[in-house]
Amino acid sequence: MTDLTPSSSFSLAVHLELLNRAGALAKVTNAIASVGGSLGNITLIERNLQTVKRELQIDASSSDHADKILDAIKSLEDVKILQVSDRTFELHKGGKIRIENRIEIKNSSDLAMAYTPGVGRICKAIAEKPEEVFSLTIKSNSIAIVTDGSAVLGLGNLGAEAALPVMEGKAMLFKGFADIDAFPICLATQDVEEIISIVKNIIPVFGGVNLEDIAAPRCFEIEKRLQEELDVPIFHDDQHGTAIVTMAALINALKLVGKEIDKIRVVINGAGAAGVAIARLLNQAQCYNITLCDSKGIISKDRENLNAEKQLLAVEKGGTLADALVDADVFIGVSAPNILTPDMVKTMAKDTIIFAMANPIPEIQPELIKDIAAVVATGRSDYPNQINNVLAFPGIFRGALDCRAKGLTTEMYLQAAGAIASLVSTEELNKEHIVPSVFDPRVATVVAEAVKKAAREAGVARN
Amino acid sequence: MTDLTPSSSFSLAVHLELLNRAGALAKVTNAIASVGGSLGNITLIERNLQTVKRELQIDASSSDHADKILDAIKSLEDVKILQVSDRTFELHKGGKIRIENRIEIKNSSDLAMAYTPGVGRICKAIAEKPEEVFSLTIKSNSIAIVTDGSAVLGLGNLGAEAALPVMEGKAMLFKGFADIDAFPICLATQDVEEIISIVKNIIPVFGGVNLEDIAAPRCFEIEKRLQEELDVPIFHDDQHGTAIVTMAALINALKLVGKEIDKIRVVINGAGAAGVAIARLLNQAQCYNITLCDSKGIISKDRENLNAEKQLLAVEKGGTLADALVDADVFIGVSAPNILTPDMVKTMAKDTIIFAMANPIPEIQPELIKDIAAVVATGRSDYPNQINNVLAFPGIFRGALDCRAKGLTTEMYLQAAGAIASLVSTEELNKEHIVPSVFDPRVATVVAEAVKKAAREAGVARN
Repeated sequence: MTDLTPSSSFSLAVHLELLNRAGALAKVTNAIASVGGSLGNITLIERNLQTVKRELQIDASSSDHADKILDAIKSLEDVKILQVSDRTFELHKGGKIRIENRIEIKNSSDLAMAYTPGVGRICKAIAEKPEEVFSLTIKSNSIAIVTDGSAVLGLGNLGAEAALPVMEGKAMLFKGFADIDAFPICLATQDVEEIISIVKNIIPVFGGVNLEDIAAPRCFEIEKRLQEELDVPIFHDDQHGTAIVTMAALINALKLVGKEIDKIRVVINGAGAAGVAIARLLNQAQCYNITLCDSKGIISKDRENLNAEKQLLAVEKGGTLADALVDADVFIGVSAPNILTPDMVKTMAKDTIIFAMANPIPEIQPELIKDIAAVVATGRSDYPNQINNVLAFPGIFRGALDCRAKGLTTEMYLQAAGAIASLVSTEELNKEHIVPSVFDPRVATVVAEAVKKAAREAGVARN
Repeated sequence: MTDLTPSSSFSLAVHLELLNRAGALAKVTNAIASVGGSLGNITLIERNLQTVKRELQIDASSSDHADKILDAIKSLEDVKILQVSDRTFELHKGGKIRIENRIEIKNSSDLAMAYTPGVGRICKAIAEKPEEVFSLTIKSNSIAIVTDGSAVLGLGNLGAEAALPVMEGKAMLFKGFADIDAFPICLATQDVEEIISIVKNIIPVFGGVNLEDIAAPRCFEIEKRLQEELDVPIFHDDQHGTAIVTMAALINALKLVGKEIDKIRVVINGAGAAGVAIARLLNQAQCYNITLCDSKGIISKDRENLNAEKQLLAVEKGGTLADALVDADVFIGVSAPNILTPDMVKTMAKDTIIFAMANPIPEIQPELIKDIAAVVATGRSDYPNQINNVLAFPGIFRGALDCRAKGLTTEMYLQAAGAIASLVSTEELNKEHIVPSVFDPRVATVVAEAVKKAAREAGVARN
């Protein structure tokens, strides 16, 4: 898709040797611009009387596009490419997280306290009083990021090993946004019972479980069973993270267009983990008029072979996505690229709200409906209104861990959504700013506070 | 046991207010000395004309001893105890390890490379070429520290949660001594098949497995099966770590007394994981004359209900430990406190070698045989010749991970033992210095090199 904006997912570091002459660099940047490459940092490496060596960071929109950019540079006279590296691959080499010791072991006294024989006193203290594991070990701040690799990003069933880079990335976000110690558990099995049993057996080390990239409908059963059988927070981010941030965005979008949540009609396209969870959460927020669609159209009661989750959300009347959209107020897409057309949007109710969250290519390019829809949001960082789970999960777990919640409730999710929405003030709120930036440092804290409050009210907080 | 040397396993931080007068501190240090407390750092906190506040770090030998020390301080006039904290417990609060990000996520460009959408390219690369998981994730440097909590230190079956502080400590040692990212997996099951199955299912994230504190004989089966069914290093430290370091110490002790390993008679007391592994490794090093004893005496062929490992090591003639020791050259204890007497040692062959490694209280106090035995070693840091597994496991895994070994062989263990022994030069070698210090910075490197070389020779190295 060369119509995609260049992003750092295809980012090159190119070492060049240029003539040391005015205009030499300009020639290169022009060439890059002419084929649509996006320049990041330019670093001077060394210079002598004749030549200059520089490193250029260049974002492309695809591998092919990256090749085109390099060809454009190669075609220039007096420019030598010394080395090209793929920054994204470079960044992943050797992994993205590591273990660190919280105290240094410099001598036998440190060793005697942190390890044998001193550690024996700590073990005995926990054996005598099991809840001490929360204060004397990493448990109170550690969560397992569990996947079976069956639904890795939008890429499908790639398996446990190929899922690991995503889980490491997730661990980085937990650390960077909420100072939580999360560790990837990528399972070589995709059997529901086996996954449940393994998570139950490894739980002594973890204060919570983030389920990730597990295919629907298996993910529903795994989450439900773990919630029933364990007394720590279990959170399937693909479901609830997406639902919470969608809800937050919807709260603010509705404010903008002056509609009430209990009076709107919502069409959700995509009935996997995210779609089902969004429908459920909206329902809990008094949004009852929801039409859920999948690749076969409206999920209606007359359809056969619906799984349990779809059955519960099925409506009376069938039809296509286009049928469903007529007079609808809100479109929420968690489905596939380019399945929504401007003509379909035109059939919707006035002051249309479009959340086109398919990744990396949305259900409709926002440019195409900028004059038709009142509010447009996507999952991408290069458009306004990025609906990104990272607004929710770090704060959700921060709050749940801090109050040692025995589990998570829908009310905690709704409060989290409200907290995220509240960070966009009335003055700031506009069609291009309905959710806070993921780098807004207040986000995790207000979400955590909201979650803790809701946990205490629900009686699931242990402290 | 007040006859134990004070150690940092019972270390207090005591805040005192003293008169600002010459001799005031001396009065306190005298009082502490009079009841056998051991002073560490003394820190001046603040001082005015009348008074001085100081923090004293004081090691005791037990909780009772700590109380006695505090009583001795309290009995002094003009000394006020402001606060007492248990340094060992303080150090464990919140756990001893944490996750760190190897790169910072500061903006959406970082996010696009480390997480979606950029990470998708990395996932696809691994899906297409599975061995890439070693270069593009943490796998190549990460190991699982797996326990079922059934044999925690010498404390017994305390369970998974109470075992966690030991596993965190182990992770610290892996990090501190060999820069390996080790994560604790404490299992809520003690079923052999279940443990094997879980480890196989979580292996995608790990480049190796360190089994820890799993009771014998279960540990033998688990290790063997995992070695057969997985293609990464599996190492039960309680067995092989102990055996390797014992072997290293024995090599140097034999040099000192001028005996050959194939001509000595060895008595091993303790037939759990460590005892059996030591017997096996010595055997591989041409030491065939070994008598293994357990709490019932010599393990002889006429005894009933021996497990498979004991049967293999059983000798013809039964008897007591004392019987076994007559004319033996070497005693190796991995058993219980104070079961060896000076009289028993006197019946042994000339130039006796005694390794009394029970922790924290050895089979015999070294002081009692200093004129009888030629060489005495223990597991303790406060006596000479500490036989400590930390001399082996960090380097073993460093070497195995660096060459991506498919597994570990006995030859790798023997080479590791030789490498450890080699660090004590002929000039340095004496009865109080048969093994290097655990803080000798050369240890992990030479062990890793020896392991890599042996792995390549055995054809188990992948690079």
